[in-house]
Amino acid sequence: MRIDIISAVPELLESPLNHSILKRAKEKKLIEIQVHSLRDYAINKHGQIDDTQYGGGAGMVLMCEPLSKIIEELKSQREYDEVIYMTPDGVQYKQDMANNLSLKNNLLIICGHYKGIDQRIRDLYVTLEISIGDYVLSGGELAAAIMVDSICRLIPGVLNDETSALTDSFQDHLLAPPLYTRPVSFKNLKVPEILLSGHFAKIEEWRFEQSLERTKTRRPDLIKKLPK
Amino acid sequence: MRIDIISAVPELLESPLNHSILKRAKEKKLIEIQVHSLRDYAINKHGQIDDTQYGGGAGMVLMCEPLSKIIEELKSQREYDEVIYMTPDGVQYKQDMANNLSLKNNLLIICGHYKGIDQRIRDLYVTLEISIGDYVLSGGELAAAIMVDSICRLIPGVLNDETSALTDSFQDHLLAPPLYTRPVSFKNLKVPEILLSGHFAKIEEWRFEQSLERTKTRRPDLIKKLPK
Repeated sequence: MRIDIISAVPELLESPLNHSILKRAKEKKLIEIQVHSLRDYAINKHGQIDDTQYGGGAGMVLMCEPLSKIIEELKSQREYDEVIYMTPDGVQYKQDMANNLSLKNNLLIICGHYKGIDQRIRDLYVTLEISIGDYVLSGGELAAAIMVDSICRLIPGVLNDETSALTDSFQDHLLAPPLYTRPVSFKNLKVPEILLSGHFAKIEEWRFEQSLERTKTRRPDLIKKLPK
Repeated sequence: MRIDIISAVPELLESPLNHSILKRAKEKKLIEIQVHSLRDYAINKHGQIDDTQYGGGAGMVLMCEPLSKIIEELKSQREYDEVIYMTPDGVQYKQDMANNLSLKNNLLIICGHYKGIDQRIRDLYVTLEISIGDYVLSGGELAAAIMVDSICRLIPGVLNDETSALTDSFQDHLLAPPLYTRPVSFKNLKVPEILLSGHFAKIEEWRFEQSLERTKTRRPDLIKKLPK
């Protein structure tokens, strides 16, 4: 899979894309990620890429011309499955969307910054608008990093043990059960005995019950999505 | 405000916390952020901080001892308003939680990594469990960065123009209206005339209608939260 990311502040993406899982995925050549600086496509020698809003109001808007130039250049080089704009008014990002996107070949991600991007870029080029949650950020860079992380870890070979991703929260519309590791007793709190029993069928049953209970208590809205 | 972050992979947080808005906020001494490496509190000279799950299954779990050591050390130095654990089974993070947290003095954030942390650390120390969305990440680091960004931009003085944050999506349970900047015409798409009219009252009315329409179409669930 190849992912291109357009950003006005590409420095923000340096460390999230170059450590841990994503570093390993790139080294194994399972993914290729290119970050493109919008400033390289500025409209003048002062590096201008944003301007004030028509109609007044606080906050700068990323201009059409630099964005259009880089998007058209990238689109001329390959066909994108989706041109994605990270925005709080987009479709709510969930695990099933991560699953779907992990099957694509080429993704182009546009990060807004400051107040956002000119609406005409959304009208002309964007095929999918995604929100990672109901809160506002300084820019789309961290949202893009989140999305890329959630997608890439699903690509076969990226995690050392692929079954790990399958037992995560949300994959079955349930929250994950509690986790315990050594030591058995810590500050008088003990690991539940069942986990030490070696009865794998009973352990699985206990974990499912814990998952179900936790989901009922914390996220009853997810229970409605369970297959009957 | 002071924020302490505990992480097994602190390198991931380098660039998100040191550019753009957060860089400026730190330079202005409006926030102080310290990232602590869990590996400095490893249980042995091999730097061990994680181990396999009791009961079997894929994925490593962050151990009690290193986490307990660093949490107790930090808690002995200051009183925290909240000890937060970033986890997909936490409370869903929304703008109103960002607003509330931006009023606190000291926050301690624990990032899980790999499969998660030992349940006993959650039982003993954590006062608030937060999920930034219904998807699974490699670790809590990017989630913590997202939360810190969303909180810090609300602290007075961090944004150059404070009214900018007030007109963002969600602050009034509405999505933001479309944005336009120069030029007036781009690839035959024109800026709506009303925005060029100079009638500020009418512009505000148009923006409110656009916000309402966009919210009805894209996020009818938010409309229910509007004050009657």
